[in-house]
Amino acid sequence: MGDVTGRLAEIVGERNLLSGDAVPDDYAHDESLTVGAAKPAHVAKPATAEEVAALLALAAENDLPVTARGSGSGLSGAARPRENGLLISFERMNAVLEIDTANQVAVVQPGVTLAELDEATAEAGLAYTVYPGELSASVGGNVGTNAGGMRAVKYGVARHNIVGLQAVLPTGEIIRTGGKTSKISSGYDLTQLIIGSEGTLALVTEVSVKLHPRLAHAATLLAPFGDLDQVMRAVPEIIASGLTPNILEYIDNLTMAAISYNEKLSLGVPDEVRDATQAYLVVGLENRDGDRLDGDVQRAGELLGELGASDVYVLDGGSARKLIEAREKAFWTAKAAGADDVIDVVVPRAEMPGFLAKVRELAAAAEAGAIGCGHAGDGNVHLGIFCKDPEKRHALLHDIFAAGIAVGGAISGEHGIGQAKKDHFVALEDPGKVALLRRIKQAFDPKGILNPDVLFD
Amino acid sequence: MGDVTGRLAEIVGERNLLSGDAVPDDYAHDESLTVGAAKPAHVAKPATAEEVAALLALAAENDLPVTARGSGSGLSGAARPRENGLLISFERMNAVLEIDTANQVAVVQPGVTLAELDEATAEAGLAYTVYPGELSASVGGNVGTNAGGMRAVKYGVARHNIVGLQAVLPTGEIIRTGGKTSKISSGYDLTQLIIGSEGTLALVTEVSVKLHPRLAHAATLLAPFGDLDQVMRAVPEIIASGLTPNILEYIDNLTMAAISYNEKLSLGVPDEVRDATQAYLVVGLENRDGDRLDGDVQRAGELLGELGASDVYVLDGGSARKLIEAREKAFWTAKAAGADDVIDVVVPRAEMPGFLAKVRELAAAAEAGAIGCGHAGDGNVHLGIFCKDPEKRHALLHDIFAAGIAVGGAISGEHGIGQAKKDHFVALEDPGKVALLRRIKQAFDPKGILNPDVLFD
Ligand SMILES: Cc1cc2nc3c(=O)[nH]c(=O)nc-3n(C[C@H](O)[C@H](O)[C@H](O)COP(=O)(O)OP(=O)(O)OC[C@H]3O[C@@H](n4cnc5c(N)ncnc54)[C@H](O)[C@@H]3O)c2cc1C
Ligand SMILES: Cc1cc2nc3c(=O)[nH]c(=O)nc-3n(C[C@H](O)[C@H](O)[C@H](O)COP(=O)(O)OP(=O)(O)OC[C@H]3O[C@@H](n4cnc5c(N)ncnc54)[C@H](O)[C@@H]3O)c2cc1C
Repeated sequence: MGDVTGRLAEIVGERNLLSGDAVPDDYAHDESLTVGAAKPAHVAKPATAEEVAALLALAAENDLPVTARGSGSGLSGAARPRENGLLISFERMNAVLEIDTANQVAVVQPGVTLAELDEATAEAGLAYTVYPGELSASVGGNVGTNAGGMRAVKYGVARHNIVGLQAVLPTGEIIRTGGKTSKISSGYDLTQLIIGSEGTLALVTEVSVKLHPRLAHAATLLAPFGDLDQVMRAVPEIIASGLTPNILEYIDNLTMAAISYNEKLSLGVPDEVRDATQAYLVVGLENRDGDRLDGDVQRAGELLGELGASDVYVLDGGSARKLIEAREKAFWTAKAAGADDVIDVVVPRAEMPGFLAKVRELAAAAEAGAIGCGHAGDGNVHLGIFCKDPEKRHALLHDIFAAGIAVGGAISGEHGIGQAKKDHFVALEDPGKVALLRRIKQAFDPKGILNPDVLFD
Repeated sequence: MGDVTGRLAEIVGERNLLSGDAVPDDYAHDESLTVGAAKPAHVAKPATAEEVAALLALAAENDLPVTARGSGSGLSGAARPRENGLLISFERMNAVLEIDTANQVAVVQPGVTLAELDEATAEAGLAYTVYPGELSASVGGNVGTNAGGMRAVKYGVARHNIVGLQAVLPTGEIIRTGGKTSKISSGYDLTQLIIGSEGTLALVTEVSVKLHPRLAHAATLLAPFGDLDQVMRAVPEIIASGLTPNILEYIDNLTMAAISYNEKLSLGVPDEVRDATQAYLVVGLENRDGDRLDGDVQRAGELLGELGASDVYVLDGGSARKLIEAREKAFWTAKAAGADDVIDVVVPRAEMPGFLAKVRELAAAAEAGAIGCGHAGDGNVHLGIFCKDPEKRHALLHDIFAAGIAVGGAISGEHGIGQAKKDHFVALEDPGKVALLRRIKQAFDPKGILNPDVLFD
């Protein structure tokens, strides 16, 4: 081990290596509520792809399990290291290498945070439109989890916005995939395969992302509904309307109460409306042209009324921003309220009413709570699960995941499987498919050094 | 062999099996100009995924190379069978299984043609927006090649519009990937891996595709430019303008002359303008609202003027349709004009001027012709190559592909590598990456029965 420590230090420099007791607690976990902390033997902070390659070669030689870490804001325990392992933190690889306005692409190192990239692109009037709730998240982490967020209903998730990678294979090669082009048909798409692989296939050392123009005009509508089902039935209609909202979120009444209280939100909804509300729909619209935006706001308001909203509030800029921020912090609110887990099942949009009815039934039967909000436009339901007993909770989650899969959905829409949900994943997925995933893992990582506890064992 | 024939007939029924001399010539090739015909020993036409699985099991047992065929309209020889092999034609699996308007997804069998699907979705006011030039192409073929086409500049290519698959693995399992949801983060994305794999990883037996609303109002602008460079420099500006054209094609003057002549097109461009034109830009706009469309047409016209167009013609519906159809037939025009190959290099949009200058230089040095058109908005350049000598042509193509790769592009944007370009692919790609692709191939197809001559040997 002493030898390994010395060689690690040679690769990244002594000041960029933390070993043993010098490893701070923060590196022992991500934000998963259920995956316990585990301190790695070493934290290495490389500065280049070559250093990452050297780290992987050393790890392979010494059978050292390796976990990649961006900002550790993930919710599935996929950045939780092995106790005896090596954590590779990308915090020093945080340069924005290029904002290419002609091709509308940014090239960045993986450790760049979303907040940093947002600032760097703002000047050019462009944006990387993947906005998960946590802007301290890194672009490398977005690749790892195939991150989504609120704007995905219009702009797609990480998968649709990442066009090229530089990656280090566990077998040592540094490869490039994709590029600044929006389409390629020249061999298997490794970019897409690495996206969402949660650090199990390759380590990403450079990312090319699509940029979109920032539109000058935006509005946010808040529509309370007496009935959660109605909200869910409204969603496909709004999508079909062609209004192309850039936000289409639902927030159930308990979650709205909690986030409003926490964030001291006051949205101008009268008490009697609030009391008769089971869920809210938040609709974001944007346009490059102010008149067109006004027309769309008008039309959206009418449509929401037709779809059963008890009222429609067009929020002023300040309230809108606060509401969106509060929604982004819903995870912290759930955590503070004592949620035992937070999950993000995705189902076909039109299946949400049935799926949520089933969830209520399952939660009631288990004497558990399941409240939430979600990226309704994507069919992505975020649920805070309140159920203290681990065994009962495991059974409840199993049933909820199974219910999602039964209507054509998946266990996770954007948070990933990680360590938190791998038992469910392996139990519920087709074994023939899991066997194929394992063979693909083997094709990338024959020695099994990358995140060996994630997705499956 | 007699035994194999009997067992094949048992699987698909005698009338759905053609063997030996009974195999018509048409099954021996696709539309590639350079990959010669080869008659397979058998053509089987299965009706179900189970039959496909049984065919693959039999093929694996007998080391019979298997090629999948949709409509055979591919341009890379990827559906050209092995002489002694089994061609699986999906022509009988041609049902539209479901038009799900609530989720805006269609579920189809792979043999459905784009024309058939277009008709089936029209009634619901929706469309599968992947429109390669040849509408006799099948959806399964679109999956195989990651097809693009003119609308990709707005709607993306097959990869962005295919959300779920049922596929038969060469190891015999029938799996489902993805679904009717637009995002999933639950294991490696097999949908994306199979898309663009040119029949080498798995056979697709069902496809779920995204549908988009058909917008009521559309217009087509034709802008002649005195200079090809100017056209190419205009492209990123039009993309950046936020007008989101649904068509953004360039057509060089020779190609325009040829397709106009062939299709008896008359577009109202005066002789003196035509004679001073080096290339044309075709800009398609669409909107759900007629007034907004008018505003966009106005703005696009002004912008094209600023960008150097010598004039701008707003085509009437009939001329517009004819021009688009003629553009779609550019391949046939090139073929009829004696082109020796047609290629489709993709480069970052803003690199097109430099790349095309390099192509002119290379073609001149080789005393060859290289004329074309292309999906300019995507950086996808379609070139008809006129160079009779196979060795000289091989060298010229090598240099053109290398020039594309050097500016961050790839050999093919949408036609694929197939058999036609695999030598170039293997010669020009990073060997470490090709080795990884081979290991992935191995993970799917350990016996190497699926399209063993495609992509690499
Ligand atoms: C309050 C809050 C709100 C959130 N809201 C959303 C939301 O709306 N949508 C959403 O999708 N997510 C959301 N998340 C989850 C999280 O922010 C995202 O998953 C984000 O993409 C994680 O980025 P990170 O840098 O923190 O990654 P980490 O947690 O550090 O890592 C995530 C995964 O990526 C891998 N990884 C990291 N860097 C690399 C690399 N360079 N190469 C290879 N693999 C790498 C890790 O090994 C791990 O598997 C939220 C989290 C919080 C705390
Ligand atoms: C005039 C003309 C214009 C064209 N314009 C364009 C264009 O603009 N953009 C573009 O992208 N292409 C274009 N093409 C090429 C072609 O139309 C597309 O590649 C199309 O996707 C091929 O579909 P197909 O059914 O004919 O496939 P095939 O040629 O039959 O097969 C193509 C590939 O897909 C595989 N495949 C077919 N079915 C399956 C299945 N069920 N499972 C697994 N693999 C399968 C085959 O093995 C092969 O590798 C054009 C072709 C012509 C002739």
